[in-house]
Amino acid sequence: MHAPDGAQRPLNAASFRAHGYALIDWIADYRETLSSRDVNHATTPGAIRAQLSACAPETGEPFDAVMHDLDSILMPGITHWQHPGWFAYFPANSSYESILGELASAGLGVQGMLWSTSPACTELETHVLDWLVHALGLPAQFLSTNTGGGVLQDTASSAVLVAIVAARERATNFVSDAKGLAGANSALVAYSSDQSHSSIEKAMRIAGLGKDALRLIPCDATGSMRMDLLRARIAEDRASGYTPFFVNASIGTTGVNGFDDVGAISRLCCVQSSAKPIWLHVDAAMSGTAALCPEFRFVVEGTERADSWCFNPHKWMPVNFDCDAMFVADRSELVRALSVLPEYLRNAATDSGNVIDYRDWQIPLGRRFRALKLWFVLRSWGLVALRNLVREHVALAQDLAARVQSSSHLQLVVQPRLNLVCITHVEGDAATQALLERVNASGHSFVSHCRFGAANEGVDRYVLRVSIGALATKREHVEQLWNLLAIH
Amino acid sequence: MHAPDGAQRPLNAASFRAHGYALIDWIADYRETLSSRDVNHATTPGAIRAQLSACAPETGEPFDAVMHDLDSILMPGITHWQHPGWFAYFPANSSYESILGELASAGLGVQGMLWSTSPACTELETHVLDWLVHALGLPAQFLSTNTGGGVLQDTASSAVLVAIVAARERATNFVSDAKGLAGANSALVAYSSDQSHSSIEKAMRIAGLGKDALRLIPCDATGSMRMDLLRARIAEDRASGYTPFFVNASIGTTGVNGFDDVGAISRLCCVQSSAKPIWLHVDAAMSGTAALCPEFRFVVEGTERADSWCFNPHKWMPVNFDCDAMFVADRSELVRALSVLPEYLRNAATDSGNVIDYRDWQIPLGRRFRALKLWFVLRSWGLVALRNLVREHVALAQDLAARVQSSSHLQLVVQPRLNLVCITHVEGDAATQALLERVNASGHSFVSHCRFGAANEGVDRYVLRVSIGALATKREHVEQLWNLLAIH
Repeated sequence: MHAPDGAQRPLNAASFRAHGYALIDWIADYRETLSSRDVNHATTPGAIRAQLSACAPETGEPFDAVMHDLDSILMPGITHWQHPGWFAYFPANSSYESILGELASAGLGVQGMLWSTSPACTELETHVLDWLVHALGLPAQFLSTNTGGGVLQDTASSAVLVAIVAARERATNFVSDAKGLAGANSALVAYSSDQSHSSIEKAMRIAGLGKDALRLIPCDATGSMRMDLLRARIAEDRASGYTPFFVNASIGTTGVNGFDDVGAISRLCCVQSSAKPIWLHVDAAMSGTAALCPEFRFVVEGTERADSWCFNPHKWMPVNFDCDAMFVADRSELVRALSVLPEYLRNAATDSGNVIDYRDWQIPLGRRFRALKLWFVLRSWGLVALRNLVREHVALAQDLAARVQSSSHLQLVVQPRLNLVCITHVEGDAATQALLERVNASGHSFVSHCRFGAANEGVDRYVLRVSIGALATKREHVEQLWNLLAIH
Repeated sequence: MHAPDGAQRPLNAASFRAHGYALIDWIADYRETLSSRDVNHATTPGAIRAQLSACAPETGEPFDAVMHDLDSILMPGITHWQHPGWFAYFPANSSYESILGELASAGLGVQGMLWSTSPACTELETHVLDWLVHALGLPAQFLSTNTGGGVLQDTASSAVLVAIVAARERATNFVSDAKGLAGANSALVAYSSDQSHSSIEKAMRIAGLGKDALRLIPCDATGSMRMDLLRARIAEDRASGYTPFFVNASIGTTGVNGFDDVGAISRLCCVQSSAKPIWLHVDAAMSGTAALCPEFRFVVEGTERADSWCFNPHKWMPVNFDCDAMFVADRSELVRALSVLPEYLRNAATDSGNVIDYRDWQIPLGRRFRALKLWFVLRSWGLVALRNLVREHVALAQDLAARVQSSSHLQLVVQPRLNLVCITHVEGDAATQALLERVNASGHSFVSHCRFGAANEGVDRYVLRVSIGALATKREHVEQLWNLLAIH
């Protein structure tokens, strides 16, 4: 009834089944044949668009025609993040289980903005995030059964933004919430290492605090924020009339996977008797997953007094993007900073105060059933298999690092503690960059770069990063990469 | 290899196929049997959680066990947004095509943060959003081939937040971007109707501008912002030294689907010769889809000088959540306000300036291939079928409104222009609320409420909202609802 006679009709249950099976097969085939594809795309700006029709079709087209164009037009413009030779940036693992979780979520099509608009969506999320507190060895303040609790955000960028907003309001007694920062009469300043993620600066700017109010503290030779410099800067700022309100600790920086000393930072955040504690946020986006393994629990060390902590199951865990797990020590602070309750959302459950309404824990109002895919992965994999995945990648990275160390033409930038191997060529930046280009021209391996130089070195070097964390990556793929790196 | 011998292993391609087919069937079965279910959940706070195990499993479980628990534990806690009797809030339509689009996106598992990290992801998005400019009759400044362009956000909440941030920076010459609002020395104020969405206030608070800086302008009896009061308030604010920087126009308010006069507002935003134009953002989250039909083009009238405009294909279009389409007139303003370029993201395509990097158009860094589901729907449905969907819902709503008007015990709150029918009982709030409770106890229909009273009435009435926009809703379902409403 949605189309005139003779025209293609939207899918019904029967045709959805047929095309659904075919798409499941398409995905399985894609994954099975990934290693035979070049990992990087082979397109130029505008080439994809040029093949698309100028306007949306007036009448519907057969679904097979759409799938045909997906294959012929779009696939050449895809960079294959699930490829076993994916060593660039960080992984974005999308396991079969999480694909099915995303599918189930789309099939149900529910909204979890309020507990009442689909209680299972809220309760599963709260519960599974409590599971993760236990599984990662996170401190008890992050449990929903205490004062805190977990929430799924899209990304660590959104997590740090809402953390900064809550911290800002704690620092101004919610004056900025009402009157804005121009009216709050506080010179708020935040701290993060100069190796920390760009999302910290972005969040400071979005939150109206400004880029200049973010003090980027230099790092030591391992990529860890220099505590002496942080301490000195906080003292200097206080002496100058600024109010330190927020510190971001990086657990696994993007560049070289440096780890800040969370325990030392938390003591600094709490030590000031004159003022409220400084909000301590921990960004463990990439490396948080490693805490599943007891031997890698250093990634959660010192977290006992952190106000918020997040990691991305959509990186290493492997739950498909987007899925950031954020934990707060005091949910009331976050909720107060983000809550607006218009009449059209009022309901008896909310009024009772006995339920969580996750809309008050995030920027958007609406939210899909994201916990489903996390639950699918945790149930179907189990913690043992997840730990083994982490261990395999770390072992591969450690082996690669040892080879680099024994090589005559390559150097390690830092000793890897987990799964990121950072390499320079002894002949300098141009040679390192040429090496990167050689790897990326191979088709079978794809790496990315950063610049890194410890504060005391005074110069940033061009660094080739080998991030070993893709679900499909096995020893043979690291061998292939090594064969390219080893050429003198 | 991910699990010890004897334990359940994560899915492989073969078992993914099997469980994938089964899940496709599960979704088709769910949709086919939805009308036999009660639309609302039947659970109480904590009842779902109480059935979940205390910890994540150590060893993996069979996928069938997970699916079994989905059915037995979670489904009783689901509110069925795809039910044909869904008349509450707004629809969150998840068509079969969009489910497959979400599935394909999860299967590919690519990141579209940069053009270079999957060019097809970026180019399809830009292109399909240009399609929508044409299809909706939006003005040409929103085309990517001009100074503007479209971007997919998760929700209209995020769209208005980034619009407010860009507007804030235009107003302060990017001083607040650097020094923060405390250092910008500007008393910025924004305007929106008192019927506009809660996300406007939320965005003002997140952006550090504060709740008090949002002037909520009363509405007339149709739920449209009073232009005389807006004009007066802007003049008064200017006279008091404030800087008006942002107006949100609502195209279809949540409460009663009121429409602001975008043309009149835009003339007000541009008329001030002394200052920069005030940023005009249009929130057409629900009603924007109606512009597909020439006869409903009033929803895009007056948009020629709007700075940003958004609507949610995830409401009425029907592309599954999350999918907000946002258009800006000058992409450079948005990009400058949100761009951070760390070394680890630098690449030749970005440096060339010839590509769009959508990370600079949104809050998060990462982004999935969201355009795929929008493309699937537009291609497979075609514009004719989408227009017919809108027309059917509007016709059903108009018929219902006529019945209400001829009823002795019910009243229309406003004459519906599209698909939202707002009803009160002649005996007052208690009777209206009793009517709502009767409907929602039926199991077959689910409605929600708001409060509304035009500025000149001085009193808000409890209003029963009937939003007719769910994909599955046919005449028979509105008949069922009417049978309940008609009981005197």
